[in-house]
Amino acid sequence: MKFFFKKSLDISEETKKLSSYIKQCKQIIDQNDYSSPESSLCLPSDVHILSQIDAMVAKKKTAKLKYVITIGIGGSNLGAKAIYDALYGSVDMFTPDRYPKMIFLDTIDPKINTAFLTFFKSHVKSADEFAISIISKSGTNTEPVVNAEVLLGYIKNRFSKWKQRCVITTDANSPMWNEGARLGIDVLNIPKQVGGRYSVFSAVGLFPLAMANIDIRSLLQGAKKMRDICVNESPQNYSFTSSVFQYQNWKKGRSIHNNFYFQPEFESLGKWYRQLMGESIGKEKKGITPIVSIGSVDHHSMVQLYWGGSQDKTTEIIYAKKSQDCFVPQEALFPTLSNTKGKNTSEIVSAIRKGTALAYKKQMEPFFEIEFDEINTYEMGGYMQCKMLEIMYLAKLLGVNAFDQPQVELYKIETKKILAK
Amino acid sequence: MKFFFKKSLDISEETKKLSSYIKQCKQIIDQNDYSSPESSLCLPSDVHILSQIDAMVAKKKTAKLKYVITIGIGGSNLGAKAIYDALYGSVDMFTPDRYPKMIFLDTIDPKINTAFLTFFKSHVKSADEFAISIISKSGTNTEPVVNAEVLLGYIKNRFSKWKQRCVITTDANSPMWNEGARLGIDVLNIPKQVGGRYSVFSAVGLFPLAMANIDIRSLLQGAKKMRDICVNESPQNYSFTSSVFQYQNWKKGRSIHNNFYFQPEFESLGKWYRQLMGESIGKEKKGITPIVSIGSVDHHSMVQLYWGGSQDKTTEIIYAKKSQDCFVPQEALFPTLSNTKGKNTSEIVSAIRKGTALAYKKQMEPFFEIEFDEINTYEMGGYMQCKMLEIMYLAKLLGVNAFDQPQVELYKIETKKILAK
Repeated sequence: MKFFFKKSLDISEETKKLSSYIKQCKQIIDQNDYSSPESSLCLPSDVHILSQIDAMVAKKKTAKLKYVITIGIGGSNLGAKAIYDALYGSVDMFTPDRYPKMIFLDTIDPKINTAFLTFFKSHVKSADEFAISIISKSGTNTEPVVNAEVLLGYIKNRFSKWKQRCVITTDANSPMWNEGARLGIDVLNIPKQVGGRYSVFSAVGLFPLAMANIDIRSLLQGAKKMRDICVNESPQNYSFTSSVFQYQNWKKGRSIHNNFYFQPEFESLGKWYRQLMGESIGKEKKGITPIVSIGSVDHHSMVQLYWGGSQDKTTEIIYAKKSQDCFVPQEALFPTLSNTKGKNTSEIVSAIRKGTALAYKKQMEPFFEIEFDEINTYEMGGYMQCKMLEIMYLAKLLGVNAFDQPQVELYKIETKKILAK
Repeated sequence: MKFFFKKSLDISEETKKLSSYIKQCKQIIDQNDYSSPESSLCLPSDVHILSQIDAMVAKKKTAKLKYVITIGIGGSNLGAKAIYDALYGSVDMFTPDRYPKMIFLDTIDPKINTAFLTFFKSHVKSADEFAISIISKSGTNTEPVVNAEVLLGYIKNRFSKWKQRCVITTDANSPMWNEGARLGIDVLNIPKQVGGRYSVFSAVGLFPLAMANIDIRSLLQGAKKMRDICVNESPQNYSFTSSVFQYQNWKKGRSIHNNFYFQPEFESLGKWYRQLMGESIGKEKKGITPIVSIGSVDHHSMVQLYWGGSQDKTTEIIYAKKSQDCFVPQEALFPTLSNTKGKNTSEIVSAIRKGTALAYKKQMEPFFEIEFDEINTYEMGGYMQCKMLEIMYLAKLLGVNAFDQPQVELYKIETKKILAK
C-alpha cells in the first residue's frame, strides 16, 4: 500500500500536539489489557481471540456450507460487508455457483425479509448449508432482534439442530449474551472497550469472514503491519498524516470528505468509513461529513459539483494498482469511436483515474491518493487499521471523544414510546 | 403522494421571483416543440415518443427474455436503475427465478466485466433470452463504448442474429447513431434538448424498463399528474415549495442535502437524485452536496453526525406508507429483548421513522417529508418529475444554469491525452 501526499503538507505543529497521544496508543498495544477505548488497537495481534474464533469456526464449518448469514447493523456488519463485497460480493449476482456466500441482514424491510425467507426456504436443503452469525454489541438493538426472530422463527421448526448453526456475538453479560446462554446457543465475546465501529478485527468481523473462507490471518497481518507503523512519530505514519490533512482543511472550512474509490467493489468499504468518521467526530457541532464516490460512475454524476461547486471538500483517491485482465477486442465494432481497441480495460480505468487526479490538481482542490497493491485481505486489513487510527488522531486534533455517540439515543427514545403504544 | 412541510415556511418572496419562470415552464409543455432546455417536461405526455418505444418493444420483446442489459452511465442509466431497483432489483439476489432481470453495465471494471461475461456465456442459451440497450446521449462516451465492444465482441461470434437483439439510444446524428445506421442496429432518438439527467421519461429510461415488463404508462401518468400540478403557482406545487426550502436553508449556510429514505429499495433513487442535483446546481462556486441515507442503516452510522455535528444540512425523509406484511412470530425466541413480538415489521420501521422525525424536530434541524402511497411506477414517476422541476426552480433561484456541466470536461481532456500515448 502506498500513500501520495503533497510534499508541502506541514505536519510539525500537529506532531507536537499529538506526540504524547501517539505514544499512549503504542503503550495501549503493549499493555494489551483492553482497559481503554483505544483497545481495538490490540486486536490485530491478539492470538487469544484468534484461537477462540478458530475453535468456533472449526465447530461450525461444514463441507456443504452455502450461506453465511450475518444479522447485525452498523458496526456489527459494515466491516465484514466491506471486506466481503470488495473480494466477492460485488459480483455475487454473476457468480451464482460460488460458495459460501455471505448474506447481510441489517435493517428491517418487509420486502427484503419476505424475499430472503422465501429464498431460504427453497434453496436450503439441510442445516449444514447455512450458518447464522447474530451480532449486537449492546445485545439490545431492535433490528438484529427482529431479523433473528423472523428468520429463526422459521428455522427452529424445520431444522432440529438449528441452535448448532447459530453463533451470537455480543458483549459479555449483555441481554443477548444471557439469552444465548439460556437457549444453549454458542456465544462469542466482544471486548467491552471495543466500540462497534472499531470492532472489525474482533469476532464481529473475523468469525463470519472466516466462515466464508476469507483469509483472516492475512487480514490481521495487514492490520498489524500498518498499526505498528502508525503508532510512531514517523514519516510513514499515514494515519497521522491523513488526520492532519483533514484537520488543516477542516480549519479552512472544508467540512466534507470525499472517498473517491476507483473500483466499484470498494463501495461498501466507503460505507464502513462513513460510520467510522461520522459517529466518531460528528459531535459538539463539529464534524466532517464523509461521502463516497465511485470512479467513473460519479464522473457522470458528481464531479461537476466537485470541481465547479462550493469549495468545501477534501478528497482521497483510492485504487488498486493490479487487477484482473480484460481486453477490448482488437477488431472494433464502432471504429470511429474506439480509441481503446486492444487495450486492457484496467489501463482505461487507470487513465481515467490519472486524468481525475490531474483535474483535481489543476482545480487546486486538496486531495491525496492511496494505492492498494491489489484488492486482497492483507491490503484491506492495512487500510482499515490505517483509517481507524486516522480517526482517533483526528478526534484528538478536533478535541472530541472518538468513542461515544450520545445523539444516537435521540430517536431511540421516541421510537420506543411509539412501539410501546 | 403526500408532502409534509413546516407550516411556517414562507414562499411569497420566491414566488414573486419565479412567477414568470413557472409560467414559462407551462408554455414549454403547451408548445411541445422541444426547443428549450426544459423540454424534458414534454416527455410525460408525448404520445409520439411512446408509440416509437411501443413499436421497438414489440419488435424486441420475446417470450424467453431473461436479461435486459443496459449499457450506459450517468444520465443514461441512473433513472432506469432507480425504478428497477425500487421495484425488483433490491431483491434480485433472493429471486433468482424471476425474469426478465435488468443488468446495468455502467463504469468499466475488469473484475465485473469478466464475471458478467462468464455468467452470460453459461446462462444464456439463445439470442431470444437477452436484449441489449446501449445508451449514450453524446454517442461518444468511453465507458459505454468499451462495455459494448467487450460484450458484443463475444456475442457477435456466437449469435447470428445478434444485431436484432440490440438497440442504440442516442442523439440523432451522433457518432453512435451513425455507427448504428452503418451496422444496421436499431436506433432510438433522444430529443436534442433533453439532457441526460432529465431523460428518464424518454427512450433512455422507457425502452429498457418496458422490455423488463415495467409499466411505463403508469410511470408517465404519475409524472404527468405531478408535472401539471407543479407548473402552477399553487400551494400544491411541491417542486417549487421544496426548491424554496432548499434555497432558504442554503442562504443560511446549509450546503448539504440529505435524502433520508426509509426503504433500502430507494438507494438507487437517491443516486439518481445525486446526479440531478449535483450536476445541475454545482457550478459557479455554488451548489448543494446531495447525500443519501437509508433508514435504519444510517441510524447506526450517520445520525450521530446529523444530530451532533455541524449544522450544515437539510433533510428530506422519504418513505412508502403501504408495504408488504411480514410478521415477527408471537412466540419470541429472545423474550427479554422483544417488545416487537407479533408485530408487522412495517409497523416497526414506521415507528423508527416517526421517532426520527421527532428527533429532527427536537434538534430544530430543518426537514420535510414525502410519503409515497406505496412503491409503484405511478408514485415513482410523480416523485422523479417533482424532483426534476424542483431542481430547475432551485437553479433559477440560485442563478445558475440547470442544464450544463462545464467542469465535467476537465478530466476527459487529461484522460484522452493519457490514452493517446
